[in-house]
Amino acid sequence: MKRILLGSGSPRRKELMSMMDIDFEPIKLNDVEEVYPSSLKADDVPAFLSRLKAQSYYDNISDDEVLVTADTVVIIDDEILGKPKTPTEACDMLRRLSGACHKVVTGVSLTSTDGIVTFDETTIVEFDNLSAEDIAYYVEKYRPFDKAGSYGIQEWIGLVAIKKIDGCFYNVMGLPTRALYRKLKEIGAI
Amino acid sequence: MKRILLGSGSPRRKELMSMMDIDFEPIKLNDVEEVYPSSLKADDVPAFLSRLKAQSYYDNISDDEVLVTADTVVIIDDEILGKPKTPTEACDMLRRLSGACHKVVTGVSLTSTDGIVTFDETTIVEFDNLSAEDIAYYVEKYRPFDKAGSYGIQEWIGLVAIKKIDGCFYNVMGLPTRALYRKLKEIGAI
Repeated sequence: MKRILLGSGSPRRKELMSMMDIDFEPIKLNDVEEVYPSSLKADDVPAFLSRLKAQSYYDNISDDEVLVTADTVVIIDDEILGKPKTPTEACDMLRRLSGACHKVVTGVSLTSTDGIVTFDETTIVEFDNLSAEDIAYYVEKYRPFDKAGSYGIQEWIGLVAIKKIDGCFYNVMGLPTRALYRKLKEIGAI
Repeated sequence: MKRILLGSGSPRRKELMSMMDIDFEPIKLNDVEEVYPSSLKADDVPAFLSRLKAQSYYDNISDDEVLVTADTVVIIDDEILGKPKTPTEACDMLRRLSGACHKVVTGVSLTSTDGIVTFDETTIVEFDNLSAEDIAYYVEKYRPFDKAGSYGIQEWIGLVAIKKIDGCFYNVMGLPTRALYRKLKEIGAI
């Protein structure tokens, strides 16, 4: 058993860790610039970024600690959709996702004095056709500016407009909970 | 626009209706004995039962109302798993689901003075191997006696032990939210 540190400000990740009955302590990491080599395939970016976040804390880790860092992206047509900065950008992203399948990839790094273990998981999400009214309603009411791809699967739009998913649901919310739980057991952290 | 009545005591269904931003009024239906013809295929049972619940209210429906009734079952090897009555039964069910795929089928009926519209939706759920300790922990702590198949996908076991789902996530919680939303639009209820 180790102390689990969660290096993420995401309220959804905190909620998921609690739902997994894991005791953890949220910590604030130093800001890292989330840049990656342009040669990197889109699918590999979240794992890379979760490791980048981990490295910023690596020198501070104690023997009895494991740090969890993660990054989630939405990928459509091999292009990464980040967090929208404006309502217009949010609406543009949702128009791209409308009536199509996209991938949600979450990369996770577990950091201990033994080193950094990194893995990722992909979930396929299929959206129904979204009308202009649906998109305007959602962006206005839910303001998805903290969400990659401009949507939360646990919000109105996820309930009324997602046709199906193939993979881990919680991965779309920000953590591949089953895979994370197994890895934490494997390294003796829980 | 009509008044939406929800004929279900399930707190999860109430939560899902609220998350869909639908104003609704929960109502208590007369108890109906949930029996079905033995010739009915397992997959068709939830639609049948949702209609049976609807029929108990049919004579009371007003012009401005739509009643939503639903039934959710877990099916494995063509056998329906209902709600467990005892901890032993709950553990037995979870042992059956361990390391295997099963189907979750929710049947929904929408009742108005125009008649009863019934539809259903299926989601495939794949469980990881569950250890005896996992099962005992879950049943003891979460007491899934109100849940078909002895589990809630939104609880600990759903996060740490479900490998993947194929279909609508919220269908597993008790309502095929996207399909329901579209049907309610189609009949002019919302």
